[in-house]
Amino acid sequence: MDCIFCKIISGDIPTDKIYADEHTLAFLDIPPVNFGHTLVVPKQHFRNVFDIPVDVWQSVLSTAHRLAPFVRDAVSAEGVNISSSNEPSAGQTVFHSHTHIIPRFAGDGHVSWTQKKYPEGDATKVAERIR
Amino acid sequence: MDCIFCKIISGDIPTDKIYADEHTLAFLDIPPVNFGHTLVVPKQHFRNVFDIPVDVWQSVLSTAHRLAPFVRDAVSAEGVNISSSNEPSAGQTVFHSHTHIIPRFAGDGHVSWTQKKYPEGDATKVAERIR
Repeated sequence: MDCIFCKIISGDIPTDKIYADEHTLAFLDIPPVNFGHTLVVPKQHFRNVFDIPVDVWQSVLSTAHRLAPFVRDAVSAEGVNISSSNEPSAGQTVFHSHTHIIPRFAGDGHVSWTQKKYPEGDATKVAERIR
Repeated sequence: MDCIFCKIISGDIPTDKIYADEHTLAFLDIPPVNFGHTLVVPKQHFRNVFDIPVDVWQSVLSTAHRLAPFVRDAVSAEGVNISSSNEPSAGQTVFHSHTHIIPRFAGDGHVSWTQKKYPEGDATKVAERIR
């Protein structure tokens, strides 16, 4: 399969590796949102949250949980975002499931999202649809 | 404790509840990035990824994994972001650990991040510091 992350996992493409265990690999994202920006991927190929089995997903997020303080401290950041983009409309560009650990600094210009307002009564209808 | 999410969990503040199990609760975020924007929280109070135990963190992310396709389908979205903001510099404003499930649509204007470039050789140094 022509997957850049599979090639990183197999060692065919070099990377700045951070951590590996049986099911996951973590390496620096190039280019980063902030320096230290780390990706955690499952060693097995899945597209994203919609096809990854929950146990593999848990392995990836456990690695992110474990690495978060190290990523923060290594670049003297104050906090981190831990996020995944699932499908192109959400910003996914590499179709091998991955979770970002992004170190954050006050005023780093990585803007938070804009928010909407539900028309009266609509929130309850949307919740009902999800349930 | 004066925590709005603890009050939602206890039922003292009403919410549009999506899902609950032994360790987690999911409800609609008000105001949303896009309609259907859902939050998943641990029922026990933790600040964020830096103090939440890994098993509780896994419960929260398992619930997010489980709900993601339902959130997407309920609002006919194409994808989702699954993300958490940890500490104020990362955009955290409620200090009870929570993970967002944000339904996404092509061209919805929820902008992706800008990216930097490591000066030659710096990526390897940063990776070394994290390791």
